[in-house]
Amino acid sequence: MIKVSIIGASGYSGIYLIYALSLRPDVAISAITSQTYSGKKLSEVFPQFTKTGHKHNLASELEFSSFDAAAVAESSDVIFFCLPHNESSKLIPDILKKNGKIKIIDVGADFRFDRLETYEEFYGKHNAPELNQKFVYGLSDIFSDKIKNSQFTANPGCYPTGALLPILPLIFKSAVDAAFPVIIDSLSGISGAGRGIKLQNLFCEVENSVKAYNVWSHRHLPEIQEKAAGAFLNSGGKSDNNLPDILFTPHVIPVSRGILTTIYIKLNSGISQENIMEAYKEFYSGSPFVSILKNIEDCNIKNVVYSNNCHIAFEAGKKQNKGMIKIVSAIDNLGKGASLQAIQNMNLMFGLEPNCGIPEYSPFP
Amino acid sequence: MIKVSIIGASGYSGIYLIYALSLRPDVAISAITSQTYSGKKLSEVFPQFTKTGHKHNLASELEFSSFDAAAVAESSDVIFFCLPHNESSKLIPDILKKNGKIKIIDVGADFRFDRLETYEEFYGKHNAPELNQKFVYGLSDIFSDKIKNSQFTANPGCYPTGALLPILPLIFKSAVDAAFPVIIDSLSGISGAGRGIKLQNLFCEVENSVKAYNVWSHRHLPEIQEKAAGAFLNSGGKSDNNLPDILFTPHVIPVSRGILTTIYIKLNSGISQENIMEAYKEFYSGSPFVSILKNIEDCNIKNVVYSNNCHIAFEAGKKQNKGMIKIVSAIDNLGKGASLQAIQNMNLMFGLEPNCGIPEYSPFP
Amino acid sequence: MIKVSIIGASGYSGIYLIYALSLRPDVAISAITSQTYSGKKLSEVFPQFTKTGHKHNLASELEFSSFDAAAVAESSDVIFFCLPHNESSKLIPDILKKNGKIKIIDVGADFRFDRLETYEEFYGKHNAPELNQKFVYGLSDIFSDKIKNSQFTANPGCYPTGALLPILPLIFKSAVDAAFPVIIDSLSGISGAGRGIKLQNLFCEVENSVKAYNVWSHRHLPEIQEKAAGAFLNSGGKSDNNLPDILFTPHVIPVSRGILTTIYIKLNSGISQENIMEAYKEFYSGSPFVSILKNIEDCNIKNVVYSNNCHIAFEAGKKQNKGMIKIVSAIDNLGKGASLQAIQNMNLMFGLEPNCGIPEYSPFP
Amino acid sequence: MIKVSIIGASGYSGIYLIYALSLRPDVAISAITSQTYSGKKLSEVFPQFTKTGHKHNLASELEFSSFDAAAVAESSDVIFFCLPHNESSKLIPDILKKNGKIKIIDVGADFRFDRLETYEEFYGKHNAPELNQKFVYGLSDIFSDKIKNSQFTANPGCYPTGALLPILPLIFKSAVDAAFPVIIDSLSGISGAGRGIKLQNLFCEVENSVKAYNVWSHRHLPEIQEKAAGAFLNSGGKSDNNLPDILFTPHVIPVSRGILTTIYIKLNSGISQENIMEAYKEFYSGSPFVSILKNIEDCNIKNVVYSNNCHIAFEAGKKQNKGMIKIVSAIDNLGKGASLQAIQNMNLMFGLEPNCGIPEYSPFP
Repeated sequence: MIKVSIIGASGYSGIYLIYALSLRPDVAISAITSQTYSGKKLSEVFPQFTKTGHKHNLASELEFSSFDAAAVAESSDVIFFCLPHNESSKLIPDILKKNGKIKIIDVGADFRFDRLETYEEFYGKHNAPELNQKFVYGLSDIFSDKIKNSQFTANPGCYPTGALLPILPLIFKSAVDAAFPVIIDSLSGISGAGRGIKLQNLFCEVENSVKAYNVWSHRHLPEIQEKAAGAFLNSGGKSDNNLPDILFTPHVIPVSRGILTTIYIKLNSGISQENIMEAYKEFYSGSPFVSILKNIEDCNIKNVVYSNNCHIAFEAGKKQNKGMIKIVSAIDNLGKGASLQAIQNMNLMFGLEPNCGIPEYSPFP
Repeated sequence: MIKVSIIGASGYSGIYLIYALSLRPDVAISAITSQTYSGKKLSEVFPQFTKTGHKHNLASELEFSSFDAAAVAESSDVIFFCLPHNESSKLIPDILKKNGKIKIIDVGADFRFDRLETYEEFYGKHNAPELNQKFVYGLSDIFSDKIKNSQFTANPGCYPTGALLPILPLIFKSAVDAAFPVIIDSLSGISGAGRGIKLQNLFCEVENSVKAYNVWSHRHLPEIQEKAAGAFLNSGGKSDNNLPDILFTPHVIPVSRGILTTIYIKLNSGISQENIMEAYKEFYSGSPFVSILKNIEDCNIKNVVYSNNCHIAFEAGKKQNKGMIKIVSAIDNLGKGASLQAIQNMNLMFGLEPNCGIPEYSPFP
Repeated sequence: MIKVSIIGASGYSGIYLIYALSLRPDVAISAITSQTYSGKKLSEVFPQFTKTGHKHNLASELEFSSFDAAAVAESSDVIFFCLPHNESSKLIPDILKKNGKIKIIDVGADFRFDRLETYEEFYGKHNAPELNQKFVYGLSDIFSDKIKNSQFTANPGCYPTGALLPILPLIFKSAVDAAFPVIIDSLSGISGAGRGIKLQNLFCEVENSVKAYNVWSHRHLPEIQEKAAGAFLNSGGKSDNNLPDILFTPHVIPVSRGILTTIYIKLNSGISQENIMEAYKEFYSGSPFVSILKNIEDCNIKNVVYSNNCHIAFEAGKKQNKGMIKIVSAIDNLGKGASLQAIQNMNLMFGLEPNCGIPEYSPFP
Repeated sequence: MIKVSIIGASGYSGIYLIYALSLRPDVAISAITSQTYSGKKLSEVFPQFTKTGHKHNLASELEFSSFDAAAVAESSDVIFFCLPHNESSKLIPDILKKNGKIKIIDVGADFRFDRLETYEEFYGKHNAPELNQKFVYGLSDIFSDKIKNSQFTANPGCYPTGALLPILPLIFKSAVDAAFPVIIDSLSGISGAGRGIKLQNLFCEVENSVKAYNVWSHRHLPEIQEKAAGAFLNSGGKSDNNLPDILFTPHVIPVSRGILTTIYIKLNSGISQENIMEAYKEFYSGSPFVSILKNIEDCNIKNVVYSNNCHIAFEAGKKQNKGMIKIVSAIDNLGKGASLQAIQNMNLMFGLEPNCGIPEYSPFP
């Protein structure tokens, strides 16, 4: 039995973790903490949990509590943090003092960057720089070997997950012409903005609202850049001068969930559509979650929402398009982009199959 | 291993059956038939099935076939029919000739009525009147005892499921004043209209479209009437003259899934709000699927979509409202109202727990 | 030129007033006040106004100001109040001291009730009881004669507008059997909850959310009751004992705009479907806004959103339904149910045609 | 009084033309033709038209008829064609024989291309090549001078309108580095697919569906290419070799209306953000419809739906982005992208102000 706690459990990623973990016969939920709902029953706040959960672990009996480092440290084998940035890094050192072996999966941003300077430029002063290098970047379908051996995992951002899964194999295989910018154009459902109570997230403001935002400065851009740069250097790129510029444009569209990412890449000369398929097969043919679809129109948010799946499709341009390729990926921002990838990471960290106890759901219609 | 076939598998209820059954380790899907897609792979038509399904029963390997009575009869322990009305009753006699012990669950309307005349008034000439009395009405949470012992189950309509679960316990407990009409006002998502390609179901026609339809003549009215009448007679009502009039008004609202039903009933004098709660507890306290909520506002389609759950809440009027009570129920029209209730029935018919292998999903957000 | 001011102009009804009034060549907008946006340009806050408005009255040049009783009183012929309840009644006495002839249209609730006790039971202590009897109830298509001669109009609530337009003609014509409750079941878009920043109005909470609320106690119930009672007494009902009970159940559905109301009435014996049609024709055949449709399915929110129109359709039950009739009405909650009816009232109060300068919009798709 | 006929009037762009034209006191609608609804009243098919239309021209009295070349030619000053491609070009020659002076505005694709070969490559054999050169490309806000003097106008496609309005001024001012592809990434509402009854347009299939389609081969790509190439040559580009590659990726998102277009351009060296603003001001400062917004997040479909407005915003990259600029435009695909631009063209062709009788609507919420 794996004892888990979820800190910040009443936001969208926290709730999804509760739902998915409560179904598992091999998991016991020790604590779900929430400032807002502390002392309230889960099913009172979220009536959808009335009859949910595995019998030894009924969601209907769970109760939100306030955070208590000692209690959580003692009662858990693994802790999931679902907090705004700069919060988990305040709490983790204290927990480790009480339980040095506890595993930690941070769904937030605090430990995603190798370079602290980049983190601090975008998120402000880091609260636990001494811990930063201990964390592994939890892009599970690429870095599973490292994750398996790690006590600490930084779960990737939602946009980076949708962008890096299609891009990294091509960089690792030296297929990308670094002289040309990699353009990443993403469409996200509203839940990506979290459960914060803001005017711009009201139904009447969101409905029919489609816009780009933070077009040159979104916090997920440096995360994509750092991981792409790592892959370039790893694949033989010699210096930062050889790295392609990465342009990232997030948009919000009026759906609750899902991210569709359209990517424009110039391939190195001699790289064919077949080479691309081979690169993907090499990385993902054994994956229980990443699929390469033949038809780019099938790569649709509708086919992956609620799941831990990532669908990828691509189509190279014609001769006159001079090596340009378009790649599309679809993920669920809360599933693959947050909570279910976090569980996939937990599975790896505990030596389980990656798809153990991950709901395979893709609702239709 | 239970061998199942699904006839008419590419409509909304058929697909949901495939999804849910393919996850079960104790079920093997023998055939999924579809006129439209015969010969095509499931995952080709529905890319969301790319990585779905229990390992011994991968959804990605399923293929639609055309209907073949002999093949289906031989290879199946139970058949689910998801066909337009008057279709299953044409096919079943032939199947029974080849395999007299096969269990049948008809998700369609053909065998829902005790009185053939009522069926024929609303649906046209019946194709297998000799079989009609063999079918049990599959409102699982009420009639589980009969269903357990039946070879043939007629799965209820979606509106009747949402209406009868809250109404029948009150009738059985003689709480309903039959001198006053029972008013049933239902709001259904669009998937209730099926996957037929019609102008009125186009996105641009449906969006923002909210209307009542068939306000005095919907086919689910006689189904509700017959089952309510049966309960009245069962509870001591002496003749048809004592039955209340039932008014049923279906509406469509622009969501894909879910039925919210608001019911207005006049209680017999002396019946208190506590009596109502007792009646529900008597019927549903052990149920894995039916919940009585305290707060009527929590009774929300959002909290049950995709699931086999039924949420019910009620509030009695004040003194001046002279015994009137309002009851609200929420179900998923394709889950509880069709495919998952059908699996619940299958579980009962095979001696399994009712909630065996039924996805407990209620997505949020 | 009619000089108008709008107090509380940045909520949904205020904005719609600005939009519609700014298009008129015969109206000059003197002030739009908003606590939140005071000092900001309209087009800065609402970019949709960038190129909107009649040329002498460009929306792009309007600016939100803070409320100033003297300035508003001096610069306006008519003031629209779009404030939370108990606010306008604080401000109006002061304005009248500075300009005793100013016309006032209160889109809020403060002056809708004849009986102050009823108001105070549901809304709290009234701030200007001495002014209450001067206000006329602004259900324009019924009470136009009174409104024409009034300086003060209380604009009806959105639900009461959708309910009273179909009900009042039947009561006035003594068609309603008062021994039976009148049941009013309404479905409203989210904008009815206003622009307040609340968790329950977030897109991800609202999407797929369908529920009933305040099922015995909504503030619009006493408003409907008082106006219905007035009509009953007016049509010969002798005392309150003869009034039917009114049951009102509001629901919210995940659309921005529109109210569909389904009404169940028992007709007095001898009243036929033709009598109903005659009653409606008598009241509405000359109306530029109220239409009686033949087909109840055409009575759809989609056909009236954004407009000042009210569509009504009805269908009597069969013999066994003993005089029951179902009536459906559709309005736009912000147009007919608030801002455009307010402009219709302004037109009447200024001796203009009721449909003068009212946008006739019904967008499709 | 301008006498107009609309051929193919029951599709989405036809209906929008009827709505907008019926409101005008200076327009008389002579005929609205529809194969599907011939003989039916407009208000019978579309109940939203029950009380719409200017009094001398009531929408409620309009009736669909079948197409009759002679009748239409005689009774009209101008004809709008809203037909599938290759249809208007069959009908127009016949009409011109009966009335050589009739003005024609083709909302369809038949006469949009200068080069017939390009048309035929994407749309098939042209039915009236001899007429092709007589048509002017009706991108009203750029080519108004030509349109004013033309008898025949080819209304642009919806995607090209959203793409060319932001791009052409930059090409004309030689700001675009042709060595780098221009990347156009567009998100369109579902109504862009028309009112055809197809599985993929059903509500339950469209809801939550977000995908790219025809990523290298959409028919609007050659239209954008031809007009961009024309501008390049016009601005001093010497040959086709100097033209940039244009990449166009259309997506569908689950809203009814609107197109958001995100454009990636490399600026010629020395071109600053200020130069871009000047170029736009030169082209659009006097325009009643095109606005340049300061804030890219304000450039939102929500702010232009139903209108003839085009909102444009842009933001240049940082130093390391080497001259890259992102531009976003928002239009309504049926308004600016079809019917209202067609009316703007009619206004120009009849010597009226461009914004005469064009509804300025942008609904909120």
